[in-house]
Amino acid sequence: MKDISKATIDRLPLYLRALRMSQDEGLDVISSEELGRRLEITPEQIRKDLASFGQFGKKGVGYYVNELKHSISNILGLDNHWNIAIIGIGHLGSALANYHNFISLGFNLVALFDHDSSIVGKTVNHVKVTDIDVLEQTIKDLNIHIGIITVPGQFAQEVANRLVKSKIKGIWNFAPIRMKVPDDMHIVNEDLSIGLSCLSYHITRKPR
Amino acid sequence: MKDISKATIDRLPLYLRALRMSQDEGLDVISSEELGRRLEITPEQIRKDLASFGQFGKKGVGYYVNELKHSISNILGLDNHWNIAIIGIGHLGSALANYHNFISLGFNLVALFDHDSSIVGKTVNHVKVTDIDVLEQTIKDLNIHIGIITVPGQFAQEVANRLVKSKIKGIWNFAPIRMKVPDDMHIVNEDLSIGLSCLSYHITRKPR
Repeated sequence: MKDISKATIDRLPLYLRALRMSQDEGLDVISSEELGRRLEITPEQIRKDLASFGQFGKKGVGYYVNELKHSISNILGLDNHWNIAIIGIGHLGSALANYHNFISLGFNLVALFDHDSSIVGKTVNHVKVTDIDVLEQTIKDLNIHIGIITVPGQFAQEVANRLVKSKIKGIWNFAPIRMKVPDDMHIVNEDLSIGLSCLSYHITRKPR
Repeated sequence: MKDISKATIDRLPLYLRALRMSQDEGLDVISSEELGRRLEITPEQIRKDLASFGQFGKKGVGYYVNELKHSISNILGLDNHWNIAIIGIGHLGSALANYHNFISLGFNLVALFDHDSSIVGKTVNHVKVTDIDVLEQTIKDLNIHIGIITVPGQFAQEVANRLVKSKIKGIWNFAPIRMKVPDDMHIVNEDLSIGLSCLSYHITRKPR
């Protein structure tokens, strides 16, 4: 497989999201024009992105929604049904634990961790909160692939270090810090203010 | 100003984030190469994106961190200090109300709304939760520019309709539905599973 740009990869989940919504609306077939209209991405870009991964859709017809949905799920590796854990069960951790899209995309929420004894032992979305003291052993026992860091910034690096030592496959980080991890660790840094900043741009520049 | 692509606009908040972190680390100047390394974006792309908005940086030196940070804030319209409100004060709404990055970017959190009488009247991050019954009047009284929707999916469209009627400038939607709003309303749909899906792609495809 040739080298795929980060921008293309970042758009795949958007395509998947739009396809899932189209299916919910009862659509069987969708054109790159209609997909593009829904996502504010040009049809040319969509066709080019998808062509990086193979031949999809039928000229003059469009993409078969269910088929393309499964193909993109497969490309994204969602059929691996990764085991995920959330570390830090404050408001954000609790919100993510209750986020149904993760489940519907095929992720398994298998563990929640916190250090606060008033939270440990509680149940969020059918998963019991475990003491962070046993993080490493639990990751091993439950075969956890992905760690989601939602602890306050000052504790995030330490949690990341422990996840790295536990040979986790990837980290999804919500803490607003520049995390130091080894080059061979996959990490995605999330910043909740990005969407709000984009909205600010639009309402500033283009009063509709 | 020429027409700027959505992809370029979406990258501006990433540049701003990286510049803010660089400044926290004490950097005065940063090259497009170093910025690119931190963001996994090519230096050519960064130079091209920024050139859409004017002349920044000095050849052979790099970008002055503080100057570029202020320029991008300005381009994003963050110096408008938009008044924001969150509608739906469950875990996600509470997490966003406590998210310090919004404040540090210049947004003013001025109101929180919920319909649950056990939540109305409580205080989250110094802001009292208001009954959603007085949504329209409060938007007018407090001059609220942006509404953040964090209610469950089945209530989201109704909330959006009320925001539209209240002549809000923009909507940031976390509900996992395809929202119907007039063409002249700016809306950014957030999907928290996008980052996790990208991480899945990376750990599936490129074992480091």
